[in-house]
Amino acid sequence: MLIVMQPNTTEDKIQKVIDFIKQKGFDAHVSKGSDHTVIGAVGRKVIDKRDIELLPGVKEVIRISSPYKLVSRAFQEKDTIIDIKGIKFGGGNVGIIAGPCTVESYDQMDITASKLKSYGVNVLRGGAFKPRTSPYSFQGLGEEGLKILKEVADKYNMAITSEVMEVSQIPMFEKYVDILQVGARNMQNFNLLKSLGEIRKPVLLKRGLSATIEEWLMSAEYIMAGGNREVILCERGIRTFEHITRNTLDISAIPVVQKISHLPIVVDPSHATGLRDKVAPMSKAAVAAGCDGLIIEVHHSPDTAVCDGAQSLYPEQFEELYKELKALATVVNKKIN
Amino acid sequence: MLIVMQPNTTEDKIQKVIDFIKQKGFDAHVSKGSDHTVIGAVGRKVIDKRDIELLPGVKEVIRISSPYKLVSRAFQEKDTIIDIKGIKFGGGNVGIIAGPCTVESYDQMDITASKLKSYGVNVLRGGAFKPRTSPYSFQGLGEEGLKILKEVADKYNMAITSEVMEVSQIPMFEKYVDILQVGARNMQNFNLLKSLGEIRKPVLLKRGLSATIEEWLMSAEYIMAGGNREVILCERGIRTFEHITRNTLDISAIPVVQKISHLPIVVDPSHATGLRDKVAPMSKAAVAAGCDGLIIEVHHSPDTAVCDGAQSLYPEQFEELYKELKALATVVNKKIN
Amino acid sequence: MLIVMQPNTTEDKIQKVIDFIKQKGFDAHVSKGSDHTVIGAVGRKVIDKRDIELLPGVKEVIRISSPYKLVSRAFQEKDTIIDIKGIKFGGGNVGIIAGPCTVESYDQMDITASKLKSYGVNVLRGGAFKPRTSPYSFQGLGEEGLKILKEVADKYNMAITSEVMEVSQIPMFEKYVDILQVGARNMQNFNLLKSLGEIRKPVLLKRGLSATIEEWLMSAEYIMAGGNREVILCERGIRTFEHITRNTLDISAIPVVQKISHLPIVVDPSHATGLRDKVAPMSKAAVAAGCDGLIIEVHHSPDTAVCDGAQSLYPEQFEELYKELKALATVVNKKIN
Amino acid sequence: MLIVMQPNTTEDKIQKVIDFIKQKGFDAHVSKGSDHTVIGAVGRKVIDKRDIELLPGVKEVIRISSPYKLVSRAFQEKDTIIDIKGIKFGGGNVGIIAGPCTVESYDQMDITASKLKSYGVNVLRGGAFKPRTSPYSFQGLGEEGLKILKEVADKYNMAITSEVMEVSQIPMFEKYVDILQVGARNMQNFNLLKSLGEIRKPVLLKRGLSATIEEWLMSAEYIMAGGNREVILCERGIRTFEHITRNTLDISAIPVVQKISHLPIVVDPSHATGLRDKVAPMSKAAVAAGCDGLIIEVHHSPDTAVCDGAQSLYPEQFEELYKELKALATVVNKKIN
Repeated sequence: MLIVMQPNTTEDKIQKVIDFIKQKGFDAHVSKGSDHTVIGAVGRKVIDKRDIELLPGVKEVIRISSPYKLVSRAFQEKDTIIDIKGIKFGGGNVGIIAGPCTVESYDQMDITASKLKSYGVNVLRGGAFKPRTSPYSFQGLGEEGLKILKEVADKYNMAITSEVMEVSQIPMFEKYVDILQVGARNMQNFNLLKSLGEIRKPVLLKRGLSATIEEWLMSAEYIMAGGNREVILCERGIRTFEHITRNTLDISAIPVVQKISHLPIVVDPSHATGLRDKVAPMSKAAVAAGCDGLIIEVHHSPDTAVCDGAQSLYPEQFEELYKELKALATVVNKKIN
Repeated sequence: MLIVMQPNTTEDKIQKVIDFIKQKGFDAHVSKGSDHTVIGAVGRKVIDKRDIELLPGVKEVIRISSPYKLVSRAFQEKDTIIDIKGIKFGGGNVGIIAGPCTVESYDQMDITASKLKSYGVNVLRGGAFKPRTSPYSFQGLGEEGLKILKEVADKYNMAITSEVMEVSQIPMFEKYVDILQVGARNMQNFNLLKSLGEIRKPVLLKRGLSATIEEWLMSAEYIMAGGNREVILCERGIRTFEHITRNTLDISAIPVVQKISHLPIVVDPSHATGLRDKVAPMSKAAVAAGCDGLIIEVHHSPDTAVCDGAQSLYPEQFEELYKELKALATVVNKKIN
Repeated sequence: MLIVMQPNTTEDKIQKVIDFIKQKGFDAHVSKGSDHTVIGAVGRKVIDKRDIELLPGVKEVIRISSPYKLVSRAFQEKDTIIDIKGIKFGGGNVGIIAGPCTVESYDQMDITASKLKSYGVNVLRGGAFKPRTSPYSFQGLGEEGLKILKEVADKYNMAITSEVMEVSQIPMFEKYVDILQVGARNMQNFNLLKSLGEIRKPVLLKRGLSATIEEWLMSAEYIMAGGNREVILCERGIRTFEHITRNTLDISAIPVVQKISHLPIVVDPSHATGLRDKVAPMSKAAVAAGCDGLIIEVHHSPDTAVCDGAQSLYPEQFEELYKELKALATVVNKKIN
Repeated sequence: MLIVMQPNTTEDKIQKVIDFIKQKGFDAHVSKGSDHTVIGAVGRKVIDKRDIELLPGVKEVIRISSPYKLVSRAFQEKDTIIDIKGIKFGGGNVGIIAGPCTVESYDQMDITASKLKSYGVNVLRGGAFKPRTSPYSFQGLGEEGLKILKEVADKYNMAITSEVMEVSQIPMFEKYVDILQVGARNMQNFNLLKSLGEIRKPVLLKRGLSATIEEWLMSAEYIMAGGNREVILCERGIRTFEHITRNTLDISAIPVVQKISHLPIVVDPSHATGLRDKVAPMSKAAVAAGCDGLIIEVHHSPDTAVCDGAQSLYPEQFEELYKELKALATVVNKKIN
């Protein structure tokens, strides 16, 4: 931590800052410049930098250690590759997840899964517990939905991802799904994150609507700190002033995260834009920018979908897109599996 | 719902939209203007407006019913007044809540509470379970913290508010606290909201960092829909591009919410600004704008506080501020109790 | 315009609204639903919708006509293709603009231009008048810079784009440059836009830091309304809460704009991210999403650049990127020229 | 400037950074901590910190000198008080400016001014040149509007403020108005700011829609650097994700600016909220938070106003508000004149 004093501060004030940080368990290294005296506080203790900023004569306090450890490239240099039934995310592999927003019925899932499987998709998505803004909206089929997902996935030898909303649901999810998904609204539900750190299944962690990349990585750190090393990050759009699209998909998060962290980052173009005709261009942009995976909403009959039909691709649209994505991936030296 | 067709749409396309909404259970009322044909869809069913927006010839779909019911002034015209041991929020009353960020020890709470009580404060705040961005930060004393809170509050005949983070903690909180607080990060933790709808104690619901006022009211609707009518809304700053203050306190939310909803709205100037010297001006601004309460961090010794000392007032600062707030409240025809 | 009345409004209030809009020159069409009465206001006059919203009994007023005319696909269905010395933007063509942030000297421009030309680039960028946040920063070489640009461009038979900051500079720019650039900070400098409407050279209009897509298109409308039909839109990142990147590049603006407008949209990945190693992934993302052009900062010696060296590519980096972009463009059926 | 090296950087990389900054004209002070080596770069030269961030081994570069000089409290400790015909802004004085959005006619201004004067207001606002999002909206009466303003102001012995949009308009404005206003959209129109630095009349500088407080102060620095010391800052709402209000009025900017700068800060609650019934609560909030002035839209007949009638107060509403503001100002030890 670096403490920058105001220009021409008195010795007295500088000494008080030094006494303060020593009392908090830090060593102090003083360095005088032409304008500013800078005090380096060296130590392992945790301190709220604002406590120092309020001392007289202090101009600014700057944290220089990264807050994250396990998620960082400094901790692990090479890419984490997450392998689910042979489908890989990270390390040059682009994993594809597809399926409807919500599990509606066995038939719906069966039709969708059979089509997706025929295109080469091996990871199926589908919501059973739905986080809805309104208490009056459809809240999902619950455990029944997970059972359907599992039955269909087994039939086609696919893996499953679905959103878990609550600590008490975790054992149930462990029984049915391969990747537990944490929704954007729960990105800082710390009790949920801690509990997910104790299991040994991959977690797909969506970025919160207004979460900074640092906060997002810190939420991944919660899961890893519990011992679960398999975290997939998912960029799904951030909230900005622009309301033509539902959210603003932050494509630049891909190279930014990949530089800081070894964890794979996938992109959800469906929730980010909220409109079907924007899903294809944004999927392509994500692959071209180097993402490690995509999670795309596909429904066999979007017009009659219970939820988010408007952002779901028709199976045929998905098939065509899938082909283009493979061609793009080749250009940027990635492999879609 | 109003469906605006593109200029010069064909009759054919108009008919297809009519067929579509009828099939979804709505009546259709067609009105032709010079440029645009507008179709009114009348009915009680829930439909995703984007499904209609994707039909050929449709320019825009506009929802005209409010999504909230129980929280709205249309449902209840007069202010909800929440009364906790004689301290009132709403209906011209400005309730004051004060106390430290975190319960650290019995002595800390005892000193703080005795001072606050002597100034006339009757509702004590203090965190026992803390939502922290980093898994390596202090996470609170847990149930031990709630016990201390309760013991001290009983000694001084004060009420208590503290943050609940998880469904499974609710019974414990019911035993100790008078107002259960939902943090900004849990504003859309829908399972928690539903469970809080089933209890019969007031809930203080903080606005999410990037929650629109509509989403915030919908979260209150979740609690009310469960049968719990005692919800206090709490504005605590929103996330914007400006980073000099930790968040941007949205003072205009006060009159906006009060027009739409009958629920009381309190303001948390401590978390919004993150800096002690901004707490007083923002508290005054909130009262002048007509808020129904304030929740202010006060610590008997901010320099040694475990958490958020930098934004905590010294007791003497609070005492002075409290006097000014009373004078301001009188000017705007409110009563601070 | 549609005026939605509150549920159960009295006839009296409905009549007052009708009288009001008739007096303002509109026809009124009343349509009664089960809950809401809706009044359609039909006419060509301009009215501030908030004036109606303030009338008693009015719930909401909804504008249904698009505010833009000349920039919209309704006005011109097929893509505007802007052709500068054979380099095309729009209609399936991806135009590439490259060069340094700032013109520093003849030699600097000569070296950079010769390299860029050898790679196949035909449009050169370079700032002569620089909009700088601080009055103490280098403000550009002024007209001298434009002269250097012109001399070098002529030598290599390239076209030029450079930023114009002020109405009085326009004649000077007409003499030297092929595309006049309007910076993000001047996107709503309406006097400048009007004056640019009167010339007959293409204008590259950058999106303002916090401009909605609608506002941006309205600024293009200013230029087109003056008679200048050659506007190139340029997405260069919007301001959000995320500060790891300088701005958040809104890649989704590409398909959104292309649906609404016939104007070409180019992307500036250099200013959006502010860091060299993010320029390549974001350029690729933009091409994959279907952009009509790119404007990329390249400097022959970024380490000694006067300005924005940190976001400038080395010529060799650009050369490599250029090849990848061509391969990507082919996949999405576009042609880089 | 402080350069923080990555943990365990080699001596070689440290030396290269030192060589680099020395070559750029800085002295280097090296300080080694347990984890990080920090290099202090001392000197007066201007350097883009990103140039250093790109050197191998560098983790972060931190600027520690403030970018502003003349606007800061370090340059001038006591408040700048701007006095226009006896009306003061700053130094404990709250100056009130009122009037319509737009000058429409002599009669309109005469009626409004006579009422405002009778309440005690001495500074009149009114737009003659209007920055409008659409080229098809009313653009103001131009010089004719300024003449009307001047004639009416002289009749009632009032001062005038009006918005200047372009460098070439400045001489005209100097002839008619007492305070030249710079609109939010022109906050970074640097040519305009430079030209306003050369005149000797006060400038009211509105904050840009997405301008940070630092950028806003830097724009004030442009004016002061030219020699014009009379700048009044005006907070008028920032753009956020919340769209219920037109903008989010950043009340906390008041104490933040007052700590950094000696310049007076006034608040425009009319443009920030865009709705008449929010103007009173936000005006009160601003005064309670300690603002140095207010600029409020008042129209003698808002229902027939050409522009922004919806956010204009009726004269009687303003009169009542004015009384309340005086009472509030007394409580916070300010004087409304």
